[in-house]
Order: sequence, then C-alpha cells, then structure tokens
Amino acid sequence: MTDFRQKALDYHAFPKPGKISVEISKPAETAKDLSLAYSPGVAEPVREIAADPENAYKYTAKGNLVAVISNGTAILGLGNLGPLASKPVMEGKALLFKRFAGLDSVDIEVKHRTTEEFIQTVEAIADTFGGINLEDIKAPECFEIERELIERCNVPVFHDDQHGTAIVTAAGLINSLEVQGKDIAEARIVCMGAGAAAVACMELLIKCGAQRENIYMLDRNGVIHTRRDDLNEYKALFANNTDKRTLEDVITDADVFVGVSGPDVLPAEAVKLMAPNPVIFACSNPDPEIKPELAHATRDDLVMGTGRSDYPNQVNNVLCFPFIFRGALDVRATRINDEMKVAAVDAIRALAKEPVPQEVLVASGYDSLEFGKDYVIPKPMDPRLLPRVARAVAVAAVESGVARIALPENYMQD
Amino acid sequence: MTDFRQKALDYHAFPKPGKISVEISKPAETAKDLSLAYSPGVAEPVREIAADPENAYKYTAKGNLVAVISNGTAILGLGNLGPLASKPVMEGKALLFKRFAGLDSVDIEVKHRTTEEFIQTVEAIADTFGGINLEDIKAPECFEIERELIERCNVPVFHDDQHGTAIVTAAGLINSLEVQGKDIAEARIVCMGAGAAAVACMELLIKCGAQRENIYMLDRNGVIHTRRDDLNEYKALFANNTDKRTLEDVITDADVFVGVSGPDVLPAEAVKLMAPNPVIFACSNPDPEIKPELAHATRDDLVMGTGRSDYPNQVNNVLCFPFIFRGALDVRATRINDEMKVAAVDAIRALAKEPVPQEVLVASGYDSLEFGKDYVIPKPMDPRLLPRVARAVAVAAVESGVARIALPENYMQD
Repeated sequence: MTDFRQKALDYHAFPKPGKISVEISKPAETAKDLSLAYSPGVAEPVREIAADPENAYKYTAKGNLVAVISNGTAILGLGNLGPLASKPVMEGKALLFKRFAGLDSVDIEVKHRTTEEFIQTVEAIADTFGGINLEDIKAPECFEIERELIERCNVPVFHDDQHGTAIVTAAGLINSLEVQGKDIAEARIVCMGAGAAAVACMELLIKCGAQRENIYMLDRNGVIHTRRDDLNEYKALFANNTDKRTLEDVITDADVFVGVSGPDVLPAEAVKLMAPNPVIFACSNPDPEIKPELAHATRDDLVMGTGRSDYPNQVNNVLCFPFIFRGALDVRATRINDEMKVAAVDAIRALAKEPVPQEVLVASGYDSLEFGKDYVIPKPMDPRLLPRVARAVAVAAVESGVARIALPENYMQD
Repeated sequence: MTDFRQKALDYHAFPKPGKISVEISKPAETAKDLSLAYSPGVAEPVREIAADPENAYKYTAKGNLVAVISNGTAILGLGNLGPLASKPVMEGKALLFKRFAGLDSVDIEVKHRTTEEFIQTVEAIADTFGGINLEDIKAPECFEIERELIERCNVPVFHDDQHGTAIVTAAGLINSLEVQGKDIAEARIVCMGAGAAAVACMELLIKCGAQRENIYMLDRNGVIHTRRDDLNEYKALFANNTDKRTLEDVITDADVFVGVSGPDVLPAEAVKLMAPNPVIFACSNPDPEIKPELAHATRDDLVMGTGRSDYPNQVNNVLCFPFIFRGALDVRATRINDEMKVAAVDAIRALAKEPVPQEVLVASGYDSLEFGKDYVIPKPMDPRLLPRVARAVAVAAVESGVARIALPENYMQD
C-alpha cells in the first residue's frame, strides 16, 4: 500500500472513525438546562411549529442543516459500489459544507430498488433539513430524481455532480474565452461525455450565452446527432443536426473542448485541429482527458483547466456548493433556480479577476496569481468565495422570487 | 406567556436556532488535510467498505451514530402534531444521547401516508447509522413499525417510548416491591392505559417474573378481558379471563398500580382499596394519574413513583436509552433483545442500592439519598449510569449471541 493510501485510511480511522460528529450547541449540563432542552420545556417550540411550520427555522437547527444524500451508484470515479461504500464521500462532503460555509451537514445513504423508491425516501425525510445536496447518483436516473424532488420538496434540492460542476466549469470556461478574446455566443464547443455533469455543463453554458447548435456532444457511440435513435431524452436535447460523426470531425476548428468522460481520450492530433487560441477543460479526475504536459507541448496558445489541484485552473466543486447552499438557506429559498446558478458563475468569475491576497497565495502554494491563462478560476482556499458567492446567490434568489425571507441586513458584506 | 415558556423558547432560538450542530472531527484546515478527507484520499475507505461493509465501522462515524426518528404522531403528551413539529423533541433526544453517552445523534422526521411507507423509508436509510431510536410514534402502529424494522434492518432498532419506559419502570417497580417486602411472582398488578408504554411495561415485567394472569390492564372501555371483542392484537395479549370490569374491581387488593394513561384517573378511594404496602407508579406527565400529595395523604404505606423530576422516584427514560445504545453499539449488536433489556433493568436496580456520591446529591438537589421508599430509582445526573448500564447491556449482548464483536478490553470499568 502506498504511503498516501495508508495516510488516507489512517486519517479516516484515528483517533476515532469518521470525519464528523454531532455536538450540543446549547447549555446542557444541569437538570435545569435539560428541563429547557427536553421535557417539559421542549413542548413550547413544538406548539409553535405546529401552529406555523415556518417556526422550525426559529427553534430548530433546520435552517442551517443540509443533507448530503446518495445511493452510491456513481461514487467519484469508482462507479456503482452501493450506498454504504459511499459514506466516506458523503461525510467528506458534510465536512466541506462545514469547513467552507459553516453549514451543519449530515450524510444519508439510501438503499432502494426503484428510482421512485429513492425519490419517495428522500421526499419523506426532506422537511428535516433546510436543503438537500444529492451526490454521486448515476445518470440518467439522477435527472428524474432531481426533477421530481425539486417538484415534491419544500426545500431546495441540488445535485452537485450536475450543477456544482457546471457552475465552476462555466465560470472557468467563460473566463478562459475572455482571456482568449473569444465570444461565447460564437464559440464552437465540443463536449466529450454525455452524463450528468456534461448535460448540466452544456445547459448552463447555453444559459450563459452559448448557442445550442454550436455544441457537439459525444458519448461512447460518437457525436450525438439528430439521426441517432439510441438517445435518452437528456442526450436528445443535444442532438446536433450535423453530418459530423467523429471526434476528429467536431474538434476541427473547435474553440472549446470540455471533457467529462475518462482518461486520455483526447489525442494530441485532435488538439492540433482546434481553432487558434482554444480552451481545453479536461475534467476527468484524477486522470484528465489529455495530460496538461502533452496538451501544452502540442500547442502554446491554449488555456487549460483540469480537475486536479496540482495544475493551474482546477475545476473544483467546492468553489460553489457550500456557498450556493449558504445563500439559498439564508433567504430560505424554495429552490435553487437558474438565476441563482448564473449568479454563482458570475461571482466566481469576478473573483478570479481580483488581486489575490497573500494568505491565499500561501495556502494555495503560489508566489503570485494574476487573471490570465494560468488563473481563470479562484483557488478553493480563497476565503472571499463565501461572502461573494453566497451573497450573489441570495440576492438572485430574492430578485427571482424564490426567497421566502428578505436578504438579512448587511448580508455577507466583506 | 409564563416566564418558563418564554425561557424555553429563548433557549431554542438564541444565540442560534436549535440545540445540536454538526462539527468536523478531523484536521480540515489545509489543502493537504482536505486531500485526505475528500478527493482523492476518500477513495481508499470507499474501496475498503465496498470490499467489506464491516469496514464502515472503521472508517466512518456510523459506529457511534444513532438516528432519532419520528413521524410526530404521538409527540410527548401533545398528540399527533405531524413530523416537523416533533423536530425540537427529536433534537432534544439527540442532545441527550450526546450529553449522557457521548453518542453522535441526528434527528430525522418522516412524512408518510401509510405505515408501510414509514417502514420503507426508515429501512432505506438505516445503514447510514449504527442504531435507530424510534420516538413518539403512536400505538398501535408503533408495534408493527418496530417489529418490521427489527426484522428488515442490520442495525438495532429500539422504540424508546415502549422499551425505555418499560426498563426504567420495571427497575423502579421491582425495587419498590423489594422495599415493600413483596414477590413480583405473586404481585397483583393493575395497569391503567393500554398504549405503547403500557404494553411494553407489562411484557417486560412478565420477563422479570410477573405472572400474566396477575395483570389487569384497563383501556378507555375498562378492564381488558377475554370476552371483549374490541381488542387489537396487542391488547388481546393482556385479555384477562376475569369477571372484573372496573378499576374498583381490579384495584381491590392490588399490590401495584402502573399508570401510563392520563391525569387524575386514580381516585383516592381506589388507592384505599389496594393491598397493604402497595406500589403506585403514576407516570402520566406532567400531571400524574394521582397527585403524590393526595396519594400520601390517603395512606402512609405507599411507595410512589411519577414521571416528574420534582418528586421522589422519577421514571425518566434518560436512565436507560443513552446507555442501552452505548452498550449495543460498542459490541455492534444486531438487535436489542430481551436479555439486554433485562440486563439494563438489573443494572439500574443495583445502582439504586449503592451509596450516592456527593456530586450526585448536589446535582439532584438532595441532602441525602438512601435505598428505600423515597429512592428506588437512580437519579438522571448519576454518572455511574453510563458504565453500569452500558456494560451490563454489552455483556448481555455478547452472552446472548447478538454481538458482532467481542467486549472491548476493560470495557466501561469504573
């Protein structure tokens, strides 16, 4: 076993198993404390909530509580290993919610037979929480699951593998196009992969100005086009009315390559065919669609992003999900809508253009960072993400009419 | 609003809503920490758990994690106010699990149409936790729910309103009979109330030596007897082959009265009819079946217990549930069986016969406490409950064959 693997196991096992704990947040030492926390005092908030469900936000932890829910069907890059095996990932996600946005978060792993059974289970427990982060659920089921749960639940439901990835990718890509002097409305975009993240990324890019007919999506059977009869309803939205059939066909003169598929599927020869000043986001993790060294050796006019922390321009969902939930919960948004997603994209984009504080440079291991080819996305350790993204999301929720309370005074002003 | 009511609401609302929070239990400051907690390090425990589900106890918080689950159909003495209104109670229970036994505990409130839907929901999420505490679910559904979930889940499931109440009541009652010089095998027992707690109490007393034919249970329609045709299957177990029909009939010469029904249903005249040296446990809360002042004014040979902290001999579930789960989880018991429940009864009984440390007297507001009429049950603030009850339960689990690991070395020795 490698040193890193052993370190990762030890981290999870010692001094006690797991990464999160539940703690008491009120005085609970004396009998008098407990008479307020439990019987008989607890009857008072019960009555208040029975009279008005909104009082749950006043008297319980609900308003700061996010459930991270998975069925373990698409765990990281590891595949369908079942709900229990996904628990370390979900606990890790809960840890990140706390670490980056101060949100209390618990993991729930769901065992089920049918998709409807999964949906019903989450729906049944949803009111416990202020919001629900779906995680590591395989496509295409994840689309129906998210759509149904958004419909049936009173709290925001967000499948991070789709939208978290989409938001951070869109922020990075649009900044990259700006660096390359290109207009997203005219950019020809190749998307390798047609799963949850791919579909969500392309939909969000369209909301940010990309043209659907300029997008070429590829799955295992090649280009997704209008004459294919093997497409599910989600892929069908990207069926291009084209004669192009292969990666070589579509990559020629493409401005953007987005990889959300698997390792080493983008050959150097294909990169050579792209338009001048192209953008490549090779997000397969840990092994990208093309190694950055190879891509840069192939041509020197690239902007490149990956999912890895040891290369520039890391697409990392942690830039988004803690803060989009922070903003959504703080105005009790009923859902996380497109306006809020686009607001998150814009806030992340804007932050990358600001000077980087010394503490962020040190925490990220850089001497300097300046907006440009090697810095189109903020670093995960940037503490300005919380106020900027959460505020943008909360404002967008209020303005788009999904907030149930007003923006708190001086909310997240830094 | 009274001062206490306002204090209870303020306690729940300030400085932030709720009583529990989720915290990070491992280093999570640096990028390196996070590479162990989440991607890529988290893949290692995922693989280990996929290879052997038991590894979830090694690498996740599961083994110390109890879910407190309710549908809000029988909240405290308040009735069916729905799942969300039960949240303060469930958070309170989670707080007590942590406060008394160091267990991490999260509340889950379940919305459902049918009983089977509730069962399926809990079954679907059960593997997330090390154990499941069902709470405030109304009878008779609670019996089927618990029975089915014990059958379907891999982790222990325990309906505290039934068994927690039964264990503490049995400990107090049997100690009371000892104080009164009576033998449980011959005691005539009247049980006023035929709900979840009543049924569980009587079943446990039988396991502790009481004779079923000596028990007279009453519901709203009077004595439960073999010629009634309005009994559900749970009440039917206590149908007595008797001509007695009223409380007056059965209380005459009774040794024990157990009230798990409602306020002031036991008149002083009935108390006068009991056998010499009787035992009265009037557990309706906050208003007992007979006020202690009235009972003691009626006769002076009583031992009396209530659910209230401001009278001697408080029947309080907190004497049991944190520790029965502590013991069960620490040996990874697959269920909480009768042997473990009886072991908990015996451990609680034994503790009441030991000298009470000064700190417990101070915390409980007494100058002295000595085993006898006014002290048959330990005080909730007694720190010896944790090692004594948890150890007894864990040993019983091992000896009865439901433990999946051996008793840890020097387990809970105080």
